[in-house]
Amino acid sequence: MKAQVFVKFKNGVLDPQGQTILGAVNRMGHSFVKDVKVGKFFEIEIEKCENPDEKLKEIADKVLANPIIEEFRIEIAGEN
Amino acid sequence: MKAQVFVKFKNGVLDPQGQTILGAVNRMGHSFVKDVKVGKFFEIEIEKCENPDEKLKEIADKVLANPIIEEFRIEIAGEN
Repeated sequence: MKAQVFVKFKNGVLDPQGQTILGAVNRMGHSFVKDVKVGKFFEIEIEKCENPDEKLKEIADKVLANPIIEEFRIEIAGEN
Repeated sequence: MKAQVFVKFKNGVLDPQGQTILGAVNRMGHSFVKDVKVGKFFEIEIEKCENPDEKLKEIADKVLANPIIEEFRIEIAGEN
């Protein structure tokens, strides 16, 4: 079973990497690009188990995301 | 209009960060997790324009992904 956890900055948190990429892309002549935000995602292979979403939430909270500046979203294949 | 570009390592490329996270998660007692792969994603705000997918592909090739070790997937909101 495959799960994915998407982690990105909370609104209002400065994203210097995104801004740097935006500048580079605009200098390439792609003015149609108005904003860029950068995030991480984790592809997690899991065994069938009880309450995978709760367990993945604990993992995301403790290991994958920094709860102070980041938020996350969990997708479990076959569940949505 | 929002587009997303997902970048991850090609199959066969070593993912030390993923392996480190896998070890940490298993040591937390979550043995249901069998593998972890780490990737990046980019949320891109774009104006309506001609051939956004081609333009985004060029941006992904040149700026967002390292074509030697990484592959990418593009999603444009409202297009799939």
